[in-house]
Amino acid sequence: MSTISETYTVTGMTCGHCVASVTEEVGAIDGVTNVAVDLPTGAVTVTSTKPVSVDAVRAAVDEAGYSLV
Amino acid sequence: MSTISETYTVTGMTCGHCVASVTEEVGAIDGVTNVAVDLPTGAVTVTSTKPVSVDAVRAAVDEAGYSLV
Repeated sequence: MSTISETYTVTGMTCGHCVASVTEEVGAIDGVTNVAVDLPTGAVTVTSTKPVSVDAVRAAVDEAGYSLV
Repeated sequence: MSTISETYTVTGMTCGHCVASVTEEVGAIDGVTNVAVDLPTGAVTVTSTKPVSVDAVRAAVDEAGYSLV
């Protein structure tokens, strides 16, 4: 099965707990199979089996308490 | 019942999740009835019904992943 990867930038994450929160919320989006967060840069790479809207990612990041650039 | 309050300084906390982790671990010490954390300063005030050793507080803070000054 082919997958899609998109990288976003999230601001406000300061520690591993923040990373875990964002990973959990974004990982719960339908179709998402992996979330990779780089804390220093805020880069969040979302891998999915189908297209994921930026609005869905933004809502998940907001839910976790952070902001999508 | 009289209570005792001692304030310690904890380093490494960066966000509300960190505060929650420290509060949970220190709050689990026998006799502790309240833990108040001030994130900007790292001040952690521990209220208890009996004396709590600094070693017990240090161990709890370490367990949470932070350091007692």
